[in-house]
Amino acid sequence: MRGVFCGRLLLLLGPLLCVLSSSVSHAGKLLLVPVEGSHWLSMQGVIQQLHQRGHEIVVIAPEASVHIQEGSSYTLKRYPVPFQREALEASFASLGHSTFEKQPFLVRVIKTYKKVKRDAALVLSGCSHLLHNAEFMASLKKSHFDAVLTDPFLLCGPIVARYLALPSIYFLNSLPCSLDSEATACPKPLSYVSRALSLNPDHMTFLQRVKNALFALMENFLCNAVYSPYASLASEIFHKDMSVKDILSPASIWLVRRDFVWDFPRPIMPNMVFIGGINCLQRKPVSQEFEAYINASGEHGIVVFSLGSMVSEIPEKKAMEIAEALGRIPQTVLWRYTGTRPSNLAKNTILVKWLPQNDLLGHPKTRAFITHSGSHGIYEGICNGVPMVMMPLFGDQMDNAKRMETRGAGVTLNVLEMTADDFANALKTVINDKSYKENIMRLSSLHKDRPIEPLDLAVFWVEYVMRHKGAPHLRPAAHDLTWYQYHSLDVIGFLLAIVMAVVFIVFKCFAYACRKCLGKKEQGRVKKSHKSKAH
Amino acid sequence: MRGVFCGRLLLLLGPLLCVLSSSVSHAGKLLLVPVEGSHWLSMQGVIQQLHQRGHEIVVIAPEASVHIQEGSSYTLKRYPVPFQREALEASFASLGHSTFEKQPFLVRVIKTYKKVKRDAALVLSGCSHLLHNAEFMASLKKSHFDAVLTDPFLLCGPIVARYLALPSIYFLNSLPCSLDSEATACPKPLSYVSRALSLNPDHMTFLQRVKNALFALMENFLCNAVYSPYASLASEIFHKDMSVKDILSPASIWLVRRDFVWDFPRPIMPNMVFIGGINCLQRKPVSQEFEAYINASGEHGIVVFSLGSMVSEIPEKKAMEIAEALGRIPQTVLWRYTGTRPSNLAKNTILVKWLPQNDLLGHPKTRAFITHSGSHGIYEGICNGVPMVMMPLFGDQMDNAKRMETRGAGVTLNVLEMTADDFANALKTVINDKSYKENIMRLSSLHKDRPIEPLDLAVFWVEYVMRHKGAPHLRPAAHDLTWYQYHSLDVIGFLLAIVMAVVFIVFKCFAYACRKCLGKKEQGRVKKSHKSKAH
Repeated sequence: MRGVFCGRLLLLLGPLLCVLSSSVSHAGKLLLVPVEGSHWLSMQGVIQQLHQRGHEIVVIAPEASVHIQEGSSYTLKRYPVPFQREALEASFASLGHSTFEKQPFLVRVIKTYKKVKRDAALVLSGCSHLLHNAEFMASLKKSHFDAVLTDPFLLCGPIVARYLALPSIYFLNSLPCSLDSEATACPKPLSYVSRALSLNPDHMTFLQRVKNALFALMENFLCNAVYSPYASLASEIFHKDMSVKDILSPASIWLVRRDFVWDFPRPIMPNMVFIGGINCLQRKPVSQEFEAYINASGEHGIVVFSLGSMVSEIPEKKAMEIAEALGRIPQTVLWRYTGTRPSNLAKNTILVKWLPQNDLLGHPKTRAFITHSGSHGIYEGICNGVPMVMMPLFGDQMDNAKRMETRGAGVTLNVLEMTADDFANALKTVINDKSYKENIMRLSSLHKDRPIEPLDLAVFWVEYVMRHKGAPHLRPAAHDLTWYQYHSLDVIGFLLAIVMAVVFIVFKCFAYACRKCLGKKEQGRVKKSHKSKAH
Repeated sequence: MRGVFCGRLLLLLGPLLCVLSSSVSHAGKLLLVPVEGSHWLSMQGVIQQLHQRGHEIVVIAPEASVHIQEGSSYTLKRYPVPFQREALEASFASLGHSTFEKQPFLVRVIKTYKKVKRDAALVLSGCSHLLHNAEFMASLKKSHFDAVLTDPFLLCGPIVARYLALPSIYFLNSLPCSLDSEATACPKPLSYVSRALSLNPDHMTFLQRVKNALFALMENFLCNAVYSPYASLASEIFHKDMSVKDILSPASIWLVRRDFVWDFPRPIMPNMVFIGGINCLQRKPVSQEFEAYINASGEHGIVVFSLGSMVSEIPEKKAMEIAEALGRIPQTVLWRYTGTRPSNLAKNTILVKWLPQNDLLGHPKTRAFITHSGSHGIYEGICNGVPMVMMPLFGDQMDNAKRMETRGAGVTLNVLEMTADDFANALKTVINDKSYKENIMRLSSLHKDRPIEPLDLAVFWVEYVMRHKGAPHLRPAAHDLTWYQYHSLDVIGFLLAIVMAVVFIVFKCFAYACRKCLGKKEQGRVKKSHKSKAH
């Protein structure tokens, strides 16, 4: 038994010594270029941790921001942009509204495309304003940062990093249109790595693989609207032709908020660090207000309901349907909802303007989680082992929901088509069918069983890049190859040409030899016949 | 300043809590199927750590073993084999001798091929004896192990794991002939991932890429001699057709003794864990005997010289050349050498039968390391920041040396061609040219800057597989695809067929329309001419 204890002590000392040695490095200066909305919120844990470790963090944000506000862990520097905060808020609100509009598929696609293009142009104008703000950029240059931490979902951060000639760390869930795979030179075989929005699993049928290929062909076209303008902006700023890949690929480390407990396994690269569930362990006890609701819920416990930071209102008719369904379960429902109170709201449903989602999910009396299946919610659900009813609204949420459903840890509903009955049944299923709880607990135990906490891992790699001024040794040589060199097409062509040349020469030699041989025989025959004639 | 301290304390607590939670798991039973020689020696750290953590480890080994002996951390179970220990020893010795024989290239290749085939057949016969030993295998089955830890360099361990229906963890440097890439479904692009023995860097010229492609074509042929017989053996044991890939691919976790500080970055898979340099931190103070040598070396310090566990003797002529060169440097040389003492051995050179390589390299007075550039030595050199003179002898050692040389951390010599002058110059260069020390120190600082020690990481993942009975969620779907499905050839064919069908139909329609149109015109003209004629 003493051996066991001793061994554990030794294993404990290993990481301790290791982290200790890493913490010897001097406190540094970090520039943070965030992206609005949940992207910004998901960075809070890392920011706090880096601040606590003594680093100076400067966050730059447009004067018109919705979520990015002053904070105690960082200095916020605002730069002027040619739009108002209201324009951004209206864009967020319209995202929520358009989700609930019933429209034919094609109309929906065209409307979404136009909206995305409009919103992207708005944010791009802000980035352009920043990069052309010589005074502001000069002040950043003078600050002598060690590195840039940024979310590459919009490409302003990577361009700023290049402008300041600083190494960068990306913090992201994923990039659309396989941009991440392209920028990391990470192979993404079409045959088992499902493309975004395809709803494909990893084990695909032939037709699913065909669908995957078609989605891969289409994604470039769809993403051009958002990302190509950044390539033009970068080309203008750096006075040379730049592609989206050129902007993204210099990153030293990619901190990817994913985990293969939930994600399908696929090839990765050495500079990709997986930190899925990074914010989960930062749980606090719930406040008195929420504790009171939970205590009052009795043996049935509670259900947590939130559609994320972007959607807090829904159309009245849909809200009434939902309210009706919620009234049919014995649990107390805590619903984050800022819209008009549905007239049929049952007694068991409590509307709140905001809720501490992760803290509530971590409470032992939480029975289910109604979510739009954004990546944060999904990881909080997995981490806390709470079965889910998922109502995906946009973006990667459909894929997220599908993935959880195939793991038997939740039920997916189509928020436009579902009836009150569907919703109530889904809720009763995930709460009463024990398999859902078992499955999510299994995922949870795997997800939490890691050699090092994802938050510590993220902090380590940010500091690593600051300490070593990048990580060039992790950059694959693939970045310096053209597409045909990467796929060895020139080598294959060359070797084929040699083989064909050899075959051709052998054939010609053979033909020549045959001709010679036949010619001799012919000559022989001619001579013979000549001789015989002469005789 | 208090903030910094507080933050560090928090970051320290993270991994501590994490490892603590993992150490809660119950002690388990592990079966270890090792491979002889340095492969076995490199596993000692993990074995000791697992033993200290309370796990019961059973090692199985042939009765005729050279390095695998009883130990305090494990129970050794021997099984009878149809050869003697002497045969194995003779095989090792002949490896050393043949390395120093000067022969034409082709003769050398054929001899090596024959030797490898002979040695492989010897070891295979041992494996076959084990698997057909019903009593021994039944006793293993009855032991109810949690997992198998094995070195897959020879395929006996993976076959035993399948026989016992146990999850397995592989512990390896790499597998020849890209078998590891095949068995993990890990892409290995020909264009920048250099093939074994090719001596290619990652940034290749066109001709180097052609060479790489040719080596890739040849490696299958060369490896068939060693690995195919295991496929036949497995097919016989499991009564179904099995390939080498089928034997290797079920591994849950691949513990790979490599590090991208030294290795070229390339795609990896989520179940590959990199633990290069795993044995480096287990340094002890050197014994009194060696301390005395070091102290006597004065300001010049010492040079450590070893050609690895397999080669401790070299031909007399070569030994004299080496001895002469060693006499020309002011450092004291500690040379592991069991052969006849060269008559010209200088006073500064001390022959020893064995030396604590890692402990000596860690001594601040060590100035250089003369090595055969086996992977263990290379990592010990990097870890301790000692510049190297490399004399690669066989296997991957040429590639290892090339990689260190391109990083400016050592000089490579051809052991057959080199003169005493070459050797002495190489030694003086790495000792006196400061760039070598600077480069190796830079590599060393990157190599040691890790979020968790590789030994702890290895122990964590072994226990992870024992705890969760494998890691099926990390197995990519690629394993269930045929080669043409994996490369989407069927999908591409299908889509091309559709495109061609559409083009064909459009063409046919167009041709039909044209004909119709022309026909009408023709008809019109005919009618016209008919009419005009009629008039």
